[in-house]
Amino acid sequence: MVPPAAQGGARDTGRPRVVIAGAGFGGLWAARTLAGHPVDVVLVDRRNYHTFLPLLYQVAAAELGPTDIAYPVRSIFRSAANVDVRLAEVTGVDAHAHEVDTSQGSLRYDYLVLGLGSVTHYFGVEGAAEHAFPLRWMDDAIPLRHHVLACFEAAAAEPDPERRRRLLTFAVVGGGPTGVEFAGALAELIHGPLLPDYPSIDRREVLVVLLEMGDRLLSTMPPHLGGYAATRLRKRRVDARLGVRVEAIRPGEVLLAGGERIRTETVVWTAGIQGDPAVRGWGLPVGRGGRVLVGDDLSVEGHPGIYVVGDLAYREDDSGHPLPQVAQVAIQQGRAVGKNVLRKLRGEPAKPFHYVDPGMLAVIGRNAAVAHVFGRTFKGIVAWILWLTIHITWLIGFRNRALVLVNWAWNYVFFRRSVRLILPGLRAEVAAADRPGCDAPSE
Amino acid sequence: MVPPAAQGGARDTGRPRVVIAGAGFGGLWAARTLAGHPVDVVLVDRRNYHTFLPLLYQVAAAELGPTDIAYPVRSIFRSAANVDVRLAEVTGVDAHAHEVDTSQGSLRYDYLVLGLGSVTHYFGVEGAAEHAFPLRWMDDAIPLRHHVLACFEAAAAEPDPERRRRLLTFAVVGGGPTGVEFAGALAELIHGPLLPDYPSIDRREVLVVLLEMGDRLLSTMPPHLGGYAATRLRKRRVDARLGVRVEAIRPGEVLLAGGERIRTETVVWTAGIQGDPAVRGWGLPVGRGGRVLVGDDLSVEGHPGIYVVGDLAYREDDSGHPLPQVAQVAIQQGRAVGKNVLRKLRGEPAKPFHYVDPGMLAVIGRNAAVAHVFGRTFKGIVAWILWLTIHITWLIGFRNRALVLVNWAWNYVFFRRSVRLILPGLRAEVAAADRPGCDAPSE
Repeated sequence: MVPPAAQGGARDTGRPRVVIAGAGFGGLWAARTLAGHPVDVVLVDRRNYHTFLPLLYQVAAAELGPTDIAYPVRSIFRSAANVDVRLAEVTGVDAHAHEVDTSQGSLRYDYLVLGLGSVTHYFGVEGAAEHAFPLRWMDDAIPLRHHVLACFEAAAAEPDPERRRRLLTFAVVGGGPTGVEFAGALAELIHGPLLPDYPSIDRREVLVVLLEMGDRLLSTMPPHLGGYAATRLRKRRVDARLGVRVEAIRPGEVLLAGGERIRTETVVWTAGIQGDPAVRGWGLPVGRGGRVLVGDDLSVEGHPGIYVVGDLAYREDDSGHPLPQVAQVAIQQGRAVGKNVLRKLRGEPAKPFHYVDPGMLAVIGRNAAVAHVFGRTFKGIVAWILWLTIHITWLIGFRNRALVLVNWAWNYVFFRRSVRLILPGLRAEVAAADRPGCDAPSE
Repeated sequence: MVPPAAQGGARDTGRPRVVIAGAGFGGLWAARTLAGHPVDVVLVDRRNYHTFLPLLYQVAAAELGPTDIAYPVRSIFRSAANVDVRLAEVTGVDAHAHEVDTSQGSLRYDYLVLGLGSVTHYFGVEGAAEHAFPLRWMDDAIPLRHHVLACFEAAAAEPDPERRRRLLTFAVVGGGPTGVEFAGALAELIHGPLLPDYPSIDRREVLVVLLEMGDRLLSTMPPHLGGYAATRLRKRRVDARLGVRVEAIRPGEVLLAGGERIRTETVVWTAGIQGDPAVRGWGLPVGRGGRVLVGDDLSVEGHPGIYVVGDLAYREDDSGHPLPQVAQVAIQQGRAVGKNVLRKLRGEPAKPFHYVDPGMLAVIGRNAAVAHVFGRTFKGIVAWILWLTIHITWLIGFRNRALVLVNWAWNYVFFRRSVRLILPGLRAEVAAADRPGCDAPSE
């Protein structure tokens, strides 16, 4: 009665088994590359969906619903008979025994692809891990969105001007793409659809402040684009501040180097990421930023059967810079690893991985972006249309269903009101809104 | 700096103040009726959104996302300057002092409209409150949906046939509209888009069973419609059982009168509702089903300034039957109370409330429904098109934005895959899926 596929680790078809840990961009593209080939692929993730992380900030800013950027992993591989999807958390690797430990027991592998991504890095800033909102996963974006809405609710019911001001101040730490995009989207939400719902709140009571330690925003892009981003953000009422270092984050305030205090109930931390610290205990060589060191072919030194892709992998480009932790690197690495596994099975030599940089984009708002692509720079509405076109094309290819995309584009281009709900399941946040103040941001 | 509207209960415009407790259909329509008139309306709800409850079962069955049936209350009253929306829980009424107690402090009222709805009633069945899933609010629908999906995940990883069977058995208690609609939608989900994602699960391992104590389904509709519904459900692989009484619900099983046991991890309770027990302590006359007794004009006897609308109000029709607890009654009552308040203010006599019954509909699946409207009965696809048309018209009127509706109709008519995500914020349910079994349905 029970088909063999259900019998967990016990199944043995005699074909080599590739276990892929993580259904992010890297793992997903590795699995896609291996689909339909004579290998058994087991794709393990602790979530039953893949998240399109480049648009995560739009979920946090209530521009999109979580379902707009997530896709059930099983549906992606529905027609791939050799890809088995498992809902489980990967907890360790036993390289000697060729086994992966998961919350659902261990899995034997012939080849292992680790694509477990990265986590927020607070660089030891006092109080950051306790009091700031990270913005790295869906689990971060939804509580953050609920908290922002709850702060508006609390402010509307709050007579004390000082408390209102604190509830309506939103600090974003980190002037990289995520910080810039989130600050821009948050200002757009507030000064667009949100304020008209709160007639008792004056727009001058609201402050979105972006705090960057360096001397410009978007430091990985050409300098004039960072300058343009700062100007556009300021026009949209974002106080973009450069050269400020966050010393500590405490309940109700951010302390800056020099002693200045910003009174706020909402600090969003986008200033750094690192490889999951748990991986450090797995016996693999770990380098800068907690990333696993990989060779030419993306395999781990001393473990030719283990590959690492995406944010978790540490690899330098030809000029000695570490590859950026972005979706395109993960996708290209996932594809490369899939092909190298197939080459090995055919007895062919592995090919070294070379990253083809398609460029970078960052969006400041619904008609302004900056782009550095094809070796050229673009800004303003041209860059925004470029961004929109690239993402629409990408999503069409990714989801393989133009229908679903209509939904996304629709929700994004028109403001969809319904994403501004404080939905159940996040009782802590809703409870925070019930209290006079919502002063427990990280609850 | 702070506009007066923000100053909570302290504001006094000199105009009479109507406090409306609950933004369900009754409260919402009362507020709409009073919008633009010379009264100050304060609409209090513990959620920041109104829920279109007639479609709640579609959220539980992953046919719609929560945002498809919810709408931010503030947006509805954005252009109504005299309607103030508060996010707070109503905790009591001091009729003597003319004050409502809320989680955000007390509110003085001249007129009070109570539209707090109903809660699930388990009739004291052993273990029901502890182990069954209610299906009454958004807070119920989302955990239930996540649990169903988590059971499929757990079954796919479970080798033991007996345990698999238990994970794949779904019992729905109650053969009224909610039970019939949810059982039909659940079967449609499973045998439609869900099973193809789980190649290791055989469709014969899945069982949806509907348990009704009476001798027919949909007892408030003409008998042949209940018979038709049972036949159609059985064709859709729902085991619709009549004349069975649930004796107890225990972890992993339902015990029926006569001793039969149904082994299942999922029991959904749709068999009864009652007025919120908390209201019983507020000093108002409470009758059958915990509902507050109201007079002709829907005011509470002895308290001419307090009105009750919707599920919480007890009122009989001309033939001595209590009015049903459905959206249409609440809407008509909300409107009637709004008008009676305005009449009182003009010094005119109140008008007694008369319910105009527009009929009843229940959907069995995407092309089958039963309807009893305009004094006639319809079934099959004709009834389904009728249902769809009525709800589309209703939603257009309700949301006042055809655009949003496109989204709803689109998501409903095509199966939207993305609603089958096990999203964060419900860590207990996701954790259940991580364990081999998910045997704690009500966690």
